[in-house]
Amino acid sequence: MPLLRLALAQTDPVVGDLAGNTDQIVAAAAAAHAAGADLLATGEMALSGYPIEDLAAQPSFLRASHEAVPALARRLAEEGLGELVVVVGHPEGPFEPRLLGTSNAPTAIAQNAASVLHRGTVVARYAKHHLPNYSVFDEYRVFIPGDELLVLRLRGVDVALIVCEDLWRDGGPVGRVLEADAGLLLVINASPFERDKDEVRLPLVTRRATETDTIVAYVNIVGGQDDLVFDGDSVVVDGSGRILARAPQFEEHLLVVDVDPAAATEGRLPPDVRRVVIETTAHVDPTPIETALVELPDDREQLWNALVLGLRDYVRKNGFPGVVLGLSGGIDSSVCAALAADAIGAENVHGISMPSRYSSPGSKDDAAELAKRIGLHYSVEPIADLVLPIEEQLGLDGTAAENVQARIRGMIWMAASNTHGWLALTNGNKTEISVGYSTIYGDAAGGFAPIKDVPKTLVWELARWRNADARSRGETEPIPVAAIEKPPSAELRPGQTDQDTLPPYPLLDAILELYVAQRLGRDDIVAQGFDADTVDLVTTLVDRSEWKRRQGAIGPKISAMSYGRDRRLPITYRPRR
Amino acid sequence: MPLLRLALAQTDPVVGDLAGNTDQIVAAAAAAHAAGADLLATGEMALSGYPIEDLAAQPSFLRASHEAVPALARRLAEEGLGELVVVVGHPEGPFEPRLLGTSNAPTAIAQNAASVLHRGTVVARYAKHHLPNYSVFDEYRVFIPGDELLVLRLRGVDVALIVCEDLWRDGGPVGRVLEADAGLLLVINASPFERDKDEVRLPLVTRRATETDTIVAYVNIVGGQDDLVFDGDSVVVDGSGRILARAPQFEEHLLVVDVDPAAATEGRLPPDVRRVVIETTAHVDPTPIETALVELPDDREQLWNALVLGLRDYVRKNGFPGVVLGLSGGIDSSVCAALAADAIGAENVHGISMPSRYSSPGSKDDAAELAKRIGLHYSVEPIADLVLPIEEQLGLDGTAAENVQARIRGMIWMAASNTHGWLALTNGNKTEISVGYSTIYGDAAGGFAPIKDVPKTLVWELARWRNADARSRGETEPIPVAAIEKPPSAELRPGQTDQDTLPPYPLLDAILELYVAQRLGRDDIVAQGFDADTVDLVTTLVDRSEWKRRQGAIGPKISAMSYGRDRRLPITYRPRR
Repeated sequence: MPLLRLALAQTDPVVGDLAGNTDQIVAAAAAAHAAGADLLATGEMALSGYPIEDLAAQPSFLRASHEAVPALARRLAEEGLGELVVVVGHPEGPFEPRLLGTSNAPTAIAQNAASVLHRGTVVARYAKHHLPNYSVFDEYRVFIPGDELLVLRLRGVDVALIVCEDLWRDGGPVGRVLEADAGLLLVINASPFERDKDEVRLPLVTRRATETDTIVAYVNIVGGQDDLVFDGDSVVVDGSGRILARAPQFEEHLLVVDVDPAAATEGRLPPDVRRVVIETTAHVDPTPIETALVELPDDREQLWNALVLGLRDYVRKNGFPGVVLGLSGGIDSSVCAALAADAIGAENVHGISMPSRYSSPGSKDDAAELAKRIGLHYSVEPIADLVLPIEEQLGLDGTAAENVQARIRGMIWMAASNTHGWLALTNGNKTEISVGYSTIYGDAAGGFAPIKDVPKTLVWELARWRNADARSRGETEPIPVAAIEKPPSAELRPGQTDQDTLPPYPLLDAILELYVAQRLGRDDIVAQGFDADTVDLVTTLVDRSEWKRRQGAIGPKISAMSYGRDRRLPITYRPRR
Repeated sequence: MPLLRLALAQTDPVVGDLAGNTDQIVAAAAAAHAAGADLLATGEMALSGYPIEDLAAQPSFLRASHEAVPALARRLAEEGLGELVVVVGHPEGPFEPRLLGTSNAPTAIAQNAASVLHRGTVVARYAKHHLPNYSVFDEYRVFIPGDELLVLRLRGVDVALIVCEDLWRDGGPVGRVLEADAGLLLVINASPFERDKDEVRLPLVTRRATETDTIVAYVNIVGGQDDLVFDGDSVVVDGSGRILARAPQFEEHLLVVDVDPAAATEGRLPPDVRRVVIETTAHVDPTPIETALVELPDDREQLWNALVLGLRDYVRKNGFPGVVLGLSGGIDSSVCAALAADAIGAENVHGISMPSRYSSPGSKDDAAELAKRIGLHYSVEPIADLVLPIEEQLGLDGTAAENVQARIRGMIWMAASNTHGWLALTNGNKTEISVGYSTIYGDAAGGFAPIKDVPKTLVWELARWRNADARSRGETEPIPVAAIEKPPSAELRPGQTDQDTLPPYPLLDAILELYVAQRLGRDDIVAQGFDADTVDLVTTLVDRSEWKRRQGAIGPKISAMSYGRDRRLPITYRPRR
């Protein structure tokens, strides 16, 4: 008979919604209890949502979070779940209102904590030691690091508890708690998805398990929170590196698994490790349980699912009744429409075609065909009669006139958004956002940018994948082939194509990968064999459009280097060229 | 005869412009040399500009910065300035291109350094220990802390060298270097202006000087860099707390002062303090020098000057030939126009009045009167004929129709910006940005927001101050009295005033100060005696408009809590109400 039945709750919290997040945890505890589990672990900050950013510096927020922890313990006991040991992540810090002076005061007053609840009370607490302060993370800004280690003795097993980044650092708490001969290492996480991250995360978990011959249980939250998408993918690996259990990506799940960790010994603890003994009723449920052991799908399916969940949760958590977007018949708006339909149902998606005098008949047909295939709400608003008076009164031509067309279109979907409360989507892809190939306040207008982190070449790839996936399931392909095959064009003047002013997309995306994602310099890129003039053009466009990106809508991060908190560069910047 | 003649160069660097910043430092060195100085100190990162943000993680940027330091030393020697000891701030780190993997890699690879140049070479280097990672600062993200201390022995005096935040931390390097009996503590800084910060900064410098009976020389950069304004205000304080020299705020300046520090002793150094002896030609210029001892002006004058410099440097450093803004006849656009004229001259300011069918005759007159008083370029573009076709085709009314008016106006000044290359200003004040009382992509459209950090009540105060200041100098008051006195209105429907939907501005600003700047919660504010419904309204509006602020233009920070990098909160946030 296994020594411990472990439950990992992959919940989808909403930042700030302590009541709703508490309900999620209580529901998970009830299911875990019904499944005969001894221990339930939630993700990092599952009680408050993550990341809470500077809410960690608001005493009133800390007070509410602080009170929610014992309240959760009491409620679990009241609902007959008090015997289950529950680990819950939350912020913990001082909560008296205080007066702030000048900026020269630390933002960090709280800790990133994990509390252990049992029989109606908080029996132990751990504070995260290692605070990531790179990429999208600002944890050193908002949290004070912990300096004490915790081991729970539970049914004869020592369970070491750490939080997320603690696992990543060599020489961090992992080695220290395992000096205490823990049989199980429990890591609670809020680790956002990015492409190929599972190729780093799972090997890390496996390495930690095998190098210490310890079972590692890794639980992650799931869901979209602004520009981050948490993928779940909770996993349990034993000391031989075998995966004992793995939860599905991108959905809520309770992962239950029987584990057989080494029994606790009476060896001396390192002085800064605290051991808390928890008396629990012996586990008596010998019924075999069903344990998920999911395999990750294909890369493009993962990306598509991440984009869908990012959009769905932004809509749902912010209470929008639907979305509205412009449909040009091009690939970007087609993919955004398909994502939106997958996220919230075609019946909640409102597409507007806004042909101008430069729109080709093909584009109008493609937009209508897309709408029909997807089954979304479709309307047409020609813009010629709205643009002309402006061009004439202001005497515009060239780029200024082209921008008016784009801005009238943005105004139309924003008017629909204002009238109906729909979230306005903006369809820009990462490539055009990189080089500023968009009209600010025009096609860039909107509250959420579904493919903001998807380079143009990947947009095509995802479109083809989505169609093939539909085909394989005998469904209608959502995206018209013409939208995928035709040369991309903004259609703001006759016969225009993107390649009039930009390098071919495969070349452009290759240079952007080096300049933006890899942070290489102009000379380093040229040294790799790229044409110097092309590199100069691309890097100059990237630098000069930083001001537009600062005013851009958020959208789901799916790469190691997205625009937003991931890449913080000055607008005013005079590089050597 | 004084032991040391000290020169502090308050330069205005441009981020990334190593050549231009080098020229500034060489020019300062030439002037310092001509004035007979022994030692010239520049501000923190004076060679690269500050803050460089994630440029600190670009190997190519680090390579260029690294090479610029010995190049500066050589150039100083070539120009006959090699005998002068020059302290220069710059980033220093590895510069080989490297491949980045997933996000889980530190951004910080470089240090925030100060190099000491003498006789054509780099003779010593210090790396900042304490890295501010709160408020607008992300230094722990982008820099690795230093762990060695440095004392320069120069003409018989031990000069301890530290960087900015090192001075602020009790128990930091200050005490340690002074164990070495340094006679002079030299602090190089990039410390941005905010209201009342001089009431903290000068007392700190004075306290450090008196508590150790040491002369403290504090040199700060000056100038606007995106949303920060560095105020200079370099100062030298002796061990009795007396101010020996103080540079003017908000302008470039070379502060030269004779100091008489305690002579170096042969006491033992703490083990981690490195002492570098610099042989210099004895100082032989006994000519008395002129030392600035500026007193700070009135609070409102400081604020006005900060706003002017922030705007001027954004325009100048980004190469805009002028600015364009909408003129409504109201207080916000009037103040923005006056600031713009003070920043770059009225001849470079283009104001457009865009009356609608709801604009009062008074407003149109006030806009024209403002333009006449200031002498800016003025044009009128009525919007009725542009708005009507849109309202009719889309069948809009209510807020959606009001937003079209604002968006047509934004389109007009953006078209002028596109046509002429002018920077578009957006006139929103901090109060309306706080509660979302603006039309995104409409009146919020623009590249720079001059009064973004100025609450409405302070906008009025500054307007009155600016007029009074003009009066006192016998000049025309720039802002028409009517613009100051009339009830504020967006004039988007007949008879509308801001107070139809918002609490009176003094009350609104008081609640915003508590909620936004002081980070108090709803209950804490109500406990201070404010009406609960009003507090609920205001805090809800603030929370719900976070998505608009994320897409807002940058503007100069003048308070301890500005919108932007100062206050990082989620958009998706479901607070307890």
